[in-house]
Amino acid sequence: MLSKLKTHLANNLSFLQGKKLLLAVSGGLDSMVLTHLFQKLDTTFGIAHCNFQLREAESFGDQEFVQTYADANKIPFYLTLFDTQSYANDYKLSTQVAARELRYHWFYELLATEGYDFVLTAHHADDNLETFLINLSRGTGLEGLTGIPKQNEQIIRPLLIFSREDIESYAKENNIQWREDSSNASDKYLRNKIRHHLVPLFKELNPNFLASFQKTQTYLQEAQLLVEDATDMVFQQIATEKEDGIYFDLHKLLQLDNYNSYLFQWLKEFGFTAWEDIYDLVTAQSGKYVVSEEFRLLKDRDFLILSSLEEFDHQEFWIQENENQLDFPIKLRLSDESHIKNPADKCIFVDKEKLKFPLKIRKWQEGDYFYPSGMHGKKKVSKFFKDEKFSLIDKENTWLLCSDDQIVWIVNHRADQRYLATEFTQHILKIEVHK
Amino acid sequence: MLSKLKTHLANNLSFLQGKKLLLAVSGGLDSMVLTHLFQKLDTTFGIAHCNFQLREAESFGDQEFVQTYADANKIPFYLTLFDTQSYANDYKLSTQVAARELRYHWFYELLATEGYDFVLTAHHADDNLETFLINLSRGTGLEGLTGIPKQNEQIIRPLLIFSREDIESYAKENNIQWREDSSNASDKYLRNKIRHHLVPLFKELNPNFLASFQKTQTYLQEAQLLVEDATDMVFQQIATEKEDGIYFDLHKLLQLDNYNSYLFQWLKEFGFTAWEDIYDLVTAQSGKYVVSEEFRLLKDRDFLILSSLEEFDHQEFWIQENENQLDFPIKLRLSDESHIKNPADKCIFVDKEKLKFPLKIRKWQEGDYFYPSGMHGKKKVSKFFKDEKFSLIDKENTWLLCSDDQIVWIVNHRADQRYLATEFTQHILKIEVHK
Repeated sequence: MLSKLKTHLANNLSFLQGKKLLLAVSGGLDSMVLTHLFQKLDTTFGIAHCNFQLREAESFGDQEFVQTYADANKIPFYLTLFDTQSYANDYKLSTQVAARELRYHWFYELLATEGYDFVLTAHHADDNLETFLINLSRGTGLEGLTGIPKQNEQIIRPLLIFSREDIESYAKENNIQWREDSSNASDKYLRNKIRHHLVPLFKELNPNFLASFQKTQTYLQEAQLLVEDATDMVFQQIATEKEDGIYFDLHKLLQLDNYNSYLFQWLKEFGFTAWEDIYDLVTAQSGKYVVSEEFRLLKDRDFLILSSLEEFDHQEFWIQENENQLDFPIKLRLSDESHIKNPADKCIFVDKEKLKFPLKIRKWQEGDYFYPSGMHGKKKVSKFFKDEKFSLIDKENTWLLCSDDQIVWIVNHRADQRYLATEFTQHILKIEVHK
Repeated sequence: MLSKLKTHLANNLSFLQGKKLLLAVSGGLDSMVLTHLFQKLDTTFGIAHCNFQLREAESFGDQEFVQTYADANKIPFYLTLFDTQSYANDYKLSTQVAARELRYHWFYELLATEGYDFVLTAHHADDNLETFLINLSRGTGLEGLTGIPKQNEQIIRPLLIFSREDIESYAKENNIQWREDSSNASDKYLRNKIRHHLVPLFKELNPNFLASFQKTQTYLQEAQLLVEDATDMVFQQIATEKEDGIYFDLHKLLQLDNYNSYLFQWLKEFGFTAWEDIYDLVTAQSGKYVVSEEFRLLKDRDFLILSSLEEFDHQEFWIQENENQLDFPIKLRLSDESHIKNPADKCIFVDKEKLKFPLKIRKWQEGDYFYPSGMHGKKKVSKFFKDEKFSLIDKENTWLLCSDDQIVWIVNHRADQRYLATEFTQHILKIEVHK
């Protein structure tokens, strides 16, 4: 397994060469094997462990286990404790989504503050296969069949080429210790059924099933990118983004055999459900429209016009230096703090002296760029949206917090490196979304 | 089941209203249920039965069974006997592919000669699910997961909304008789495993699995169309078709994040296998190239140039009136016949008096159109290629037989309605591909 990993790193992940790596280690089988493998390789790495405090003593047991291992092996160790449950409650997220947000946010913070280049996680091939089969069993689209990618910005999954079996035998051969996670019993129930009953059947039909499946999934990932390309390209040809909404040119739209698919791709995130009505709108009388909770799609002569039901979309809002909260169009709370504590997607800590008041809240514009925390250099906001797979509505719904029209925070998503508080910051300002 | 079918016909297949329908009936369970259902509906239809002569007495038993049923129920009956095995041998096709070619060719002939509008086949939802799972088990791309479409030109599959279970219970309730097909045992072995072991597991995970799966597959079909759109659109932007080959503009290509996916999509049908070499070619020195059996991809400064290793690609070839065969670039044999017998993709019967000699053999050009047999009116050849899912190489490899530069035959694929021999033809000319 080690030599296969070496070949994989040399052929496909050679950009990791000489880089400072941070391993995400829960203490479970997969991440302990990941750690063991990278100890055998000639690499510099640290270990990051999140204690989500979801399983009381068990969580602290995991924490202690990983910490002890890191200390014994002289591996730099980073720990954070999340109050996952209240974060999930505050922002009405599922526990799983809350944990993911907190975790990746912290990883990006660590990349920035501790000078690491990449985070490595221990996802393996069976994780992807099981997720594929779970989604297939429930009903899904192409995206639900594409799995976790090998790389997503600075998050790398080097074990995706291995099966669970590979990992289990490596653990046995090398006498690796790990902690069993008792959580997610309901998801595990479905996963276990798939793991113990469905997957073996596929392997019986094709002894090389897992390898074929990995190729299948690579093809599907490539297809998904082409779908996104088509969606974007045809959007460029047919849609115009104006002050009062997005105009879809019906003459051009109707030249497409499959224009319904495009309408669906463009509009799916806007909360519409009456698809047949939308498809009918294309040939309906002027003045007909379909609404979702927040948007309206109007047939107006040669156009379909998508516009927000809210009025304030193209306005700017301001926070004065002496104000400690904003209530509209989003709720922000500002407070002076003596130290940085639990930064997350919904809460950043910035250096107050670097800000120029009043701060401005606005929507994004073409040409906007920022310096994403955890990354080197600047990035166009449009590229960030693309990489993060923001849909049209995600973009429409995202507010930017700006100082002197420079972006401080893509609210709820990513802070700008330039304004973040560091250990040398005198006046720490906490800016937080609340609901 | 009948009322669900009625609703489906009204909502999704209303264009069938008042049309003359031809049912493809093998005599098996599915097609006998199809027949029974359409008898209950107020429709005019005929029955077409192919005897592929692959199972000796059994094949004739099926033929007799369907013929007897049609006669007893006063349904117009069309029969053809194929020498499937020799057709497969002659053209080096698998039996299955040969049978499919013969069958659909004959259906299109019947549409034209007997004045039917659509052919209906009895494929149902489980056929698609099983094929999906077979392909998944072997490894596949998006296309392998998309299934048989509800409609493909004039071929309609109205039973795709029903499960095998629906069809079996309808047959039982209505006391329908059918013939069991003992063929395809090897495929049936795999199918049976999937049917009896894999599918029930999915249904256990989700009692509505088949319905969810149908939605999944519809989404995947739509995604596949978007993939094809992206492939075509980017091809238009980046590639130029010249006399000596297809030029891919590297400056433009390299602006795409996923240019390898596009190269793969464009080139996959040209017999290349060294994909890594092709991807490297993008950044290689001028003069480097990769070859497949018939094509070469050359790096030449700012371009990748795809060209045929053969020299005659843009030439024209001629058949004089007194010649009865052509040997190059393809082998055609011409013979006077007294009657029309077994026309197929590889063999057409035309009215010699409508032809203007010499006949010309050439490749297609932008702007070419023809009158496809079995259809009303004319069609652009490019549209025909698209609808038939011709790849670049399929197009490159296809020869047109022309009279006075009008298309008589898209050789191996589709005859032109205008030149086909009819019962009134005095001088029937058979034109046949031979190998």
